[in-house]
Amino acid sequence: MSPFPDLAILDRLRAARPLIHCVSNIVAANDCANVLLAAGASPMMAQCALEAEAVTAASRATVLNTGTPDEGRFGLCRLLARCAGKQGHPVVLDPVGVGTSPWRLSEVRALLEETPPAILRVNLGEALALLGDSGREQGVDGGGGDPASRRASALALAERCRCAVLLSGPEDHAAWDGRVYRIEGGSALTGYVTGSGCMLSVLCGAFAAVADTPGEAAVLASAFWKTCARRAEQSAGGRGPGSFRAALMDAAYTLTARDLAEEARITTV
Amino acid sequence: MSPFPDLAILDRLRAARPLIHCVSNIVAANDCANVLLAAGASPMMAQCALEAEAVTAASRATVLNTGTPDEGRFGLCRLLARCAGKQGHPVVLDPVGVGTSPWRLSEVRALLEETPPAILRVNLGEALALLGDSGREQGVDGGGGDPASRRASALALAERCRCAVLLSGPEDHAAWDGRVYRIEGGSALTGYVTGSGCMLSVLCGAFAAVADTPGEAAVLASAFWKTCARRAEQSAGGRGPGSFRAALMDAAYTLTARDLAEEARITTV
Amino acid sequence: MSPFPDLAILDRLRAARPLIHCVSNIVAANDCANVLLAAGASPMMAQCALEAEAVTAASRATVLNTGTPDEGRFGLCRLLARCAGKQGHPVVLDPVGVGTSPWRLSEVRALLEETPPAILRVNLGEALALLGDSGREQGVDGGGGDPASRRASALALAERCRCAVLLSGPEDHAAWDGRVYRIEGGSALTGYVTGSGCMLSVLCGAFAAVADTPGEAAVLASAFWKTCARRAEQSAGGRGPGSFRAALMDAAYTLTARDLAEEARITTV
Repeated sequence: MSPFPDLAILDRLRAARPLIHCVSNIVAANDCANVLLAAGASPMMAQCALEAEAVTAASRATVLNTGTPDEGRFGLCRLLARCAGKQGHPVVLDPVGVGTSPWRLSEVRALLEETPPAILRVNLGEALALLGDSGREQGVDGGGGDPASRRASALALAERCRCAVLLSGPEDHAAWDGRVYRIEGGSALTGYVTGSGCMLSVLCGAFAAVADTPGEAAVLASAFWKTCARRAEQSAGGRGPGSFRAALMDAAYTLTARDLAEEARITTV
Repeated sequence: MSPFPDLAILDRLRAARPLIHCVSNIVAANDCANVLLAAGASPMMAQCALEAEAVTAASRATVLNTGTPDEGRFGLCRLLARCAGKQGHPVVLDPVGVGTSPWRLSEVRALLEETPPAILRVNLGEALALLGDSGREQGVDGGGGDPASRRASALALAERCRCAVLLSGPEDHAAWDGRVYRIEGGSALTGYVTGSGCMLSVLCGAFAAVADTPGEAAVLASAFWKTCARRAEQSAGGRGPGSFRAALMDAAYTLTARDLAEEARITTV
Repeated sequence: MSPFPDLAILDRLRAARPLIHCVSNIVAANDCANVLLAAGASPMMAQCALEAEAVTAASRATVLNTGTPDEGRFGLCRLLARCAGKQGHPVVLDPVGVGTSPWRLSEVRALLEETPPAILRVNLGEALALLGDSGREQGVDGGGGDPASRRASALALAERCRCAVLLSGPEDHAAWDGRVYRIEGGSALTGYVTGSGCMLSVLCGAFAAVADTPGEAAVLASAFWKTCARRAEQSAGGRGPGSFRAALMDAAYTLTARDLAEEARITTV
């Protein structure tokens, strides 16, 4: 266990209640807003180019989710990334299902090159697609691989994209500047809640708004979400994913910085 | 406690099961449909200009929610407001986050001037933005202020917009024609359920479809929702906002007119 | 009880975990994705013409939901139906609220004629609208009629559209090639969960991906969903529709092929 990161940042998040602007999708928008509220942040889903400057100026982080994309969505994401760059506040990119089509892949790559995010949050299938490997995704909720390959993919992607990468899976890997943290715990039921990765991405945004570095925010968001999932499984997992999903929100609201310090399982690998 | 309003209107709502047409947003659409079903109404989310006349003719109230707006949304809202005017049925306007950008504010103002709604449902930040005050909103879920300032804002806004205003917060204020009702109760957990204000707005539409006046509908919807929240907190609040949210829907379904008459806390102020 | 269908297909579904591409709507998209995950399939909601070919090639069934339609939606549905035809994989059509407007009716009819789906999933109001009868829908969640009229409507619609029809209601009727199966059980609370019909439609897609015939898939999806609803009512129905909804997802996850064989109520009528 490393002394890094400072888990008391959860208290700072709840004291600051930062406004997080999220470009979301029709599947996960509701859950993303609720998990931000539960964790202690304040969500905003404006998603219109006409408001891009005003909304970015009022918020403390921007989370770009490219799920269920259309032609206008990527233009909006590029605009918001530029606005956030001017404000100097962190951007989290969640390239949902980036390997779904050549069009989606090229749009995400253009976005990554034009304005690298502070944090890139992916699963293994998305990481492999961005790295140009042949890993075919199984939907957008895909897992697969083993811890060593997930670690290597996170590290390679962080180097390629020059940002912090949070690669989520059975265990998460947060990589930046040649370092990798592994965050364990969680619950297999997370794979049965659609948008659980999208929710992790908006949590990255919330922690990035108050953390010292994007890497620290990625580790904290991951540890927070893994701990919520483990608690939700204990309280409701026996009933199934419908009860588990409500329990996830309950856990995000009730988890304290002290709980997190005791229960988070973070190691350098 | 005033003898007004007639809380037995809840029975009339459930007997009539009015069709309520809602322009919604990607965050709250599902919860808005479910709360209408639970309360006893029938939701319709058509949202296309090509169907505006047919849908308005088939429904008994129209609820316009301008959250997550884009350029087409306000045009649609204006069209639907005109269609509803021709039908002579009530319109509820929920100008979500109206202070987010100058564009959103000017669009909402144009809508309010062209076709004043029967009920304008806002929180304090939205009221202040519409009144031209400098209150900066904290996201779209913002509270703030004190009861006296919320009362004054509701009254001023009702006079300005020439309609019934329901200003929701720790306690709600319903104002029209120089009168103000205060509705108390509820739960602080409501602030941790995204779209709880949007849900209150569609409930205003449901009650407006069967009430004698918009003001009465606003008071009833507020009292209904506050009572649901208090009951949901009692049954599930200890677990957190995920459980509380499901309990809100349960309460909206199980609450009877007799319960409402006993538990509603309505006063003139 | 007929020996048909093979209820062990639920095991085949969970082993194959087929990717199901869904065009969804802002009300039901989240629940549709979650019910597919719970049942054992893998959801994909891409919904962009630029990805139509790639997404259809990667998936094993396509579910077209025409709720909350706009001008682009029907064009996308037609494109996806053609792509699915080239792949030779099954299409499920859910013409939500097809009687809402003449525009919606004509668009759905054009879609049905151009590329008949494998399964058409409707409620009685939608069936009557497609058959040209005067049944006025009550919202999109409408029931009404009696078992005999629902049976007759399913049979007539199957003949008219040359596909399997699943007409859901207090009891479901699956009709094709002059045969009709009735599936009983379920819960009246299903009518208080918005999108419960949309969820049944995506389940039709999941079973169609692994069943021998569309008719068999329709019967299986119906029996699965009715059994989930009955179980959810037993475990949570006393609390109300919010708890019932979470319990539906729990049931979809925990129900085994053996449970389904014991509890499904399927008869030929």
